[in-house]
Amino acid sequence: MIKVSVMYPNKDGARFDHAYYRDTHMPLVKARMGDACLYYTVDRGLAGGAPGTPPTYVGMCHIFSDSVESFQAGFGPHAKEILADIANYTDLTPVMQISEIVVGH
Amino acid sequence: MIKVSVMYPNKDGARFDHAYYRDTHMPLVKARMGDACLYYTVDRGLAGGAPGTPPTYVGMCHIFSDSVESFQAGFGPHAKEILADIANYTDLTPVMQISEIVVGH
Repeated sequence: MIKVSVMYPNKDGARFDHAYYRDTHMPLVKARMGDACLYYTVDRGLAGGAPGTPPTYVGMCHIFSDSVESFQAGFGPHAKEILADIANYTDLTPVMQISEIVVGH
Repeated sequence: MIKVSVMYPNKDGARFDHAYYRDTHMPLVKARMGDACLYYTVDRGLAGGAPGTPPTYVGMCHIFSDSVESFQAGFGPHAKEILADIANYTDLTPVMQISEIVVGH
């Protein structure tokens, strides 16, 4: 299994609507991807590792798929619609990473 | 619930022993933290978001706890031993982040 992490770097003054992200954007991703998205998780950054420091990422999602090919097959046809929705909750540009699940839950 | 993510930035020539991390280091963390670590997951970076790009992080773990206080109570007394083990699998310095679980699995 793999996961695709979409991570929004924390920047002073940036806009990020956590409620829209949770209630509208991520359900849209799941609806469009169908079973190609086995499930997803969403995080809200609270703090960095040292006391009193800000988080590196203000928000993250992780989309779990059977394989990179499965993710691409599910996401690709809807990429334009999904990416166009980003402006509705943030002006940040996310960092993406694909990881192999070594130990899952 | 919160999660503490420990993320190792991907650098050319850096050392990272994924087998040791999975088989020795993370079980040590769980053994020392006990129930303060509800569970953990481990990722291995495969690629970045664009085709052919490297992952931002070569490896990550995510430690799930009931609260920041619970994590600190479980980790703090064993921090010295756990941190001393890092040199056994990598010469990288990790980035840490504490996140609130908005949508879990």
